[in-house]
Amino acid sequence: MILFHNDYSEGCHESILRRLAETNLEQTAGYGTDPYCKSAADRIRSLCGDPRLEVHFLVGGTQANLTVIDGALRPHQAAVGAESAHINVHETGAVEAAGHKVLGLPSRDGKITAEQVSTLVSQHYSQDGPEHTVQPKLVYISNPSELGTLYTLRELEDLHAVCKQHRMYLFLDGARLGYGLAASGNDVTLQDLARLCDVFTIGGTKVGALFGEAVVFSNPAIGEDFRYLIKQHGGMLAKGRLLGLQFDTLMKDDLYMKLASHADRLADRIRRTIDSLGYPYLVEGTTNQIFPILPDWFLAELGKNFTFSEQERVDETHRAVRLCTSWATTQENADALCAEMVRIASMDR
Amino acid sequence: MILFHNDYSEGCHESILRRLAETNLEQTAGYGTDPYCKSAADRIRSLCGDPRLEVHFLVGGTQANLTVIDGALRPHQAAVGAESAHINVHETGAVEAAGHKVLGLPSRDGKITAEQVSTLVSQHYSQDGPEHTVQPKLVYISNPSELGTLYTLRELEDLHAVCKQHRMYLFLDGARLGYGLAASGNDVTLQDLARLCDVFTIGGTKVGALFGEAVVFSNPAIGEDFRYLIKQHGGMLAKGRLLGLQFDTLMKDDLYMKLASHADRLADRIRRTIDSLGYPYLVEGTTNQIFPILPDWFLAELGKNFTFSEQERVDETHRAVRLCTSWATTQENADALCAEMVRIASMDR
Amino acid sequence: MILFHNDYSEGCHESILRRLAETNLEQTAGYGTDPYCKSAADRIRSLCGDPRLEVHFLVGGTQANLTVIDGALRPHQAAVGAESAHINVHETGAVEAAGHKVLGLPSRDGKITAEQVSTLVSQHYSQDGPEHTVQPKLVYISNPSELGTLYTLRELEDLHAVCKQHRMYLFLDGARLGYGLAASGNDVTLQDLARLCDVFTIGGTKVGALFGEAVVFSNPAIGEDFRYLIKQHGGMLAKGRLLGLQFDTLMKDDLYMKLASHADRLADRIRRTIDSLGYPYLVEGTTNQIFPILPDWFLAELGKNFTFSEQERVDETHRAVRLCTSWATTQENADALCAEMVRIASMDR
Amino acid sequence: MILFHNDYSEGCHESILRRLAETNLEQTAGYGTDPYCKSAADRIRSLCGDPRLEVHFLVGGTQANLTVIDGALRPHQAAVGAESAHINVHETGAVEAAGHKVLGLPSRDGKITAEQVSTLVSQHYSQDGPEHTVQPKLVYISNPSELGTLYTLRELEDLHAVCKQHRMYLFLDGARLGYGLAASGNDVTLQDLARLCDVFTIGGTKVGALFGEAVVFSNPAIGEDFRYLIKQHGGMLAKGRLLGLQFDTLMKDDLYMKLASHADRLADRIRRTIDSLGYPYLVEGTTNQIFPILPDWFLAELGKNFTFSEQERVDETHRAVRLCTSWATTQENADALCAEMVRIASMDR
Repeated sequence: MILFHNDYSEGCHESILRRLAETNLEQTAGYGTDPYCKSAADRIRSLCGDPRLEVHFLVGGTQANLTVIDGALRPHQAAVGAESAHINVHETGAVEAAGHKVLGLPSRDGKITAEQVSTLVSQHYSQDGPEHTVQPKLVYISNPSELGTLYTLRELEDLHAVCKQHRMYLFLDGARLGYGLAASGNDVTLQDLARLCDVFTIGGTKVGALFGEAVVFSNPAIGEDFRYLIKQHGGMLAKGRLLGLQFDTLMKDDLYMKLASHADRLADRIRRTIDSLGYPYLVEGTTNQIFPILPDWFLAELGKNFTFSEQERVDETHRAVRLCTSWATTQENADALCAEMVRIASMDR
Repeated sequence: MILFHNDYSEGCHESILRRLAETNLEQTAGYGTDPYCKSAADRIRSLCGDPRLEVHFLVGGTQANLTVIDGALRPHQAAVGAESAHINVHETGAVEAAGHKVLGLPSRDGKITAEQVSTLVSQHYSQDGPEHTVQPKLVYISNPSELGTLYTLRELEDLHAVCKQHRMYLFLDGARLGYGLAASGNDVTLQDLARLCDVFTIGGTKVGALFGEAVVFSNPAIGEDFRYLIKQHGGMLAKGRLLGLQFDTLMKDDLYMKLASHADRLADRIRRTIDSLGYPYLVEGTTNQIFPILPDWFLAELGKNFTFSEQERVDETHRAVRLCTSWATTQENADALCAEMVRIASMDR
Repeated sequence: MILFHNDYSEGCHESILRRLAETNLEQTAGYGTDPYCKSAADRIRSLCGDPRLEVHFLVGGTQANLTVIDGALRPHQAAVGAESAHINVHETGAVEAAGHKVLGLPSRDGKITAEQVSTLVSQHYSQDGPEHTVQPKLVYISNPSELGTLYTLRELEDLHAVCKQHRMYLFLDGARLGYGLAASGNDVTLQDLARLCDVFTIGGTKVGALFGEAVVFSNPAIGEDFRYLIKQHGGMLAKGRLLGLQFDTLMKDDLYMKLASHADRLADRIRRTIDSLGYPYLVEGTTNQIFPILPDWFLAELGKNFTFSEQERVDETHRAVRLCTSWATTQENADALCAEMVRIASMDR
Repeated sequence: MILFHNDYSEGCHESILRRLAETNLEQTAGYGTDPYCKSAADRIRSLCGDPRLEVHFLVGGTQANLTVIDGALRPHQAAVGAESAHINVHETGAVEAAGHKVLGLPSRDGKITAEQVSTLVSQHYSQDGPEHTVQPKLVYISNPSELGTLYTLRELEDLHAVCKQHRMYLFLDGARLGYGLAASGNDVTLQDLARLCDVFTIGGTKVGALFGEAVVFSNPAIGEDFRYLIKQHGGMLAKGRLLGLQFDTLMKDDLYMKLASHADRLADRIRRTIDSLGYPYLVEGTTNQIFPILPDWFLAELGKNFTFSEQERVDETHRAVRLCTSWATTQENADALCAEMVRIASMDR
């Protein structure tokens, strides 16, 4: 069985393993105060073009999201995101457990617009007695989104502007950021993110690391005392250098982008095959996630040798599924998947 | 200006005021351990036909809702209710502040069905990795609903059954319960509620009291240690007898039902006028809340002498508004409203 | 049985009852937006000598404490108070339920000093890795304290200074504030509190009202959006005018101080009797709470006709107990208590 | 500089690194549902002698503690531990952030007794109005304690008994469990823990792993739905096999005990040196943590080449410090430390 159902089935890039081995018996300070974390943070500041950025490393994405949001909001304030946002659906109510409502905006493609935010905020403040409802304060977006779509620079600028206008924060969840930055057609850079977001994350778990998310604050107010918040939420790794070392490796010599690009190119390869077979997509995209709509019989056959994840039922005989490539996907496996799809399609009754 | 925009603009029924004055200098034990609270709880147990019910008195509805839900759920569990549910919209995220997500089900009339709950629960447990999403555990309904509609006995029995089947709790918010019990066509009794709900409330604030909600547990497990929870949430009134005394008065000699019936009959009177004028409703109902759809010009004229609350814009020239009667509404004021509506309708251009 | 075990056994001052009756059927706006709340807030601002103060009215003391603290602190920040502080002992962990640790400082008399706060803060920031421990951010004091003692103006000024120095907030819980302001020897005024505290409360429940605490913010930053916080914590009374009307009455014509003074004078009377009998105190004081240390046999005899509350066992044959007077205590009852104490003392074996 | 200030300065045992490398490109299911986690859990169940145990793997100790406690307690319930307990001091209020107070019991040696618990519980329930205070429900102990001391089997049995008697839970934090199990004089086994605790942890971070704590539930009630809780608290590692693989390695062929024993033997070596020099201890112990009381001048000299952590000032010229050995400490480094201590002592003025 070859796994295409997610992008975290393997371990990490070999260069990370190698450095783990090389440094294994070094004695370093704990809790992220070691030289590797410092070096990794410096590289990120440099890549983002802003030496004032506050950078922290956390183990996982849910933890990063809940810690950032908990630190940014007062008790009556809410996060705003797509109904399909990871924080709204797939984090077991972590944001609510930290005391905050998530206000879901309808979205077909996993993205939300500045106009949606603006309307929501206007409605909030224009109602009689806004204090009877939660106050929208932080806009959460994921880029790539949960449906593999990307924000354009213009869309991010508009979201930035609407947040500034209403004294709100813009938080970009970059759990798969690399796959977005390396996607064909992407026009957003790390420097744009540092300029437009109050805080964003750079995901390592899905892009070559064993685990780890970098949290980057450009707004020092909400990042103040963030180490306390990390510790309180159980996110402060004793051997914090494990995080620093991984990000230091990924951010060096463009490795992060190379790994992401590899996955995106293989995904492009698979998309071309699906296109050639004439199957549609639930949502079109250019990153490492592919959401084709396929007949049930096709999926039954495909599932004999390849895994995919279920997205949603489209009609009585078709489902949308998700196929993921990753930094670890081999050309052979991508080729095998494509060949199998062509073979199955030729069985069409 | 005559106020019809809510049902809590006045104080309390005169018999409550009288008893407050009579007992004012009595010395009683604090925090709800006084004889008035005991007597009021006994009356409620008797009216519900179940001597084992656990009864507590809290000051307000939001407090009652959040305290009950906080006490009933483990951290990963969620409340399920209509998207329009009071806990989902108008309590400033109180349930989320206590750590729990509210899962909103679409609803036109403020009610949810057993089938909706069943589908939600099935989807939860049949997905891959249910633990990545909150666990639906408590069904929250309001009766009358926020849109003035009522559950039938059959609907409550179905909700009860689906909750039992999935080991969920059924919680009925009766902030306006009296107006439901006294409504024409209602087939639900207090005894039904005690039998079918794990916990429900009997609202005093809107039905003759200065303030106060009775919380009635038929499921002792979720009511265990409830006094700790009341205290922790700041809901334990030092002079708790104020609550006991009010409910003791309301529950005696059918006063609660008489007050509710008065309001419902005046609402019926207003509905007949609206019907005669040919205006439709956003949602039809038989309780003290009325949701007519009226032209903007009509509302502009009506608003000169009467208040109403905004519900929603229906089209470019019409809005649905809410008119409320209450135990304190006078026949004269209801007549005046009806006369004014007739007069305005006759101005129609 | 005559009750001296607390100061909230009766209802309210007759002038409040009268105004409740007079205004009972007036129609007013809900949730504290009525003219009575406005008038009461204006009176408080005027008495405090600062027109910029933000004033809100809540039903109870625990609710006021938890709502203020929850609104003031970020997640990793803690309240600092005496080990015996009400928030640390007698509010069922309400502050912790809102997510914040209470750091208890040892205290014999219920008070804490600026030096204690200063030492705690210095230790916090000078340790290696302060982020592994909660950050002290808000100093909570009660005045009178839980042991009936009072802060001097100088002590408050020192606490204010140390808070400013460390960017901390000073919060004074005035659940029994009147009894402090009216106590012999007190040198603190409402104007001092408004100047020295970031936020303080003026208790109504124990000083003539049926219920109600005024929350007064002089620091607008922590009071921002406080109405959202009140609502979220279930503290927003639908018929908010009940609170406004009570405080408007208490703050008019010096009634609040007259009621408090009455209680303090009766307590002085009882203290003189205890002094004459030669019994010591757990803690000396001049407010309405008295903490004599009495022999067990004396208390057994006294308990036949009078109630008191248990404070602590002092040795094998003596306990400290608490006797409270209040605005409602009659001269006859105070005299009866004194006479009984004299009679019992004369039985001494 | 040679580091003795903690036991997590290095990476992991070489056999773990080797298996990480060997399995790096294997494709496995995520979130702890892989075969390595299953195998590791089976080994733990087998070592504990109870096939019914529920075993989960989390990344860190604070996370494990807060997730267990949050899952076990209802909102009004508190954890009871030593004042010096890790959850009370060094987790930035994580338990409070989850809503629960920690009740600290005085302790000289980091341990608490069944009698202390019994007294606390009796006082709670015998007071007037226990609901005004938090309900003690879970006893938290660490073994070894934060001061390196160990519970005897008899002490654990007594704590177990008092917990059963009062329907409380016993939770043992085994962040350094190996160093306790391997200590000279220890009479407690994993099987004892599984029998006597409702839940306990087996620490990997400090005993040979890169990171990771195993949580072992013998009480299925409080472990119910624990995966939801892990996810909600951000503790569910996407590549969960990293945890399984590490524990599978540690629990095989007695490796965990061999590593712990190595550290304890080196600590014994250091203790013998300190004994021979005649220096006393803050607390005596037999595990990998040593708390000597040394003159300031001695520490100034020692600090030139070796690190230690500050524990507390003992008098004007002496401080207690902490020296830790670990699985990674080399014989050479231990010898060097001892030689240096002997050298410094000979300098004595």
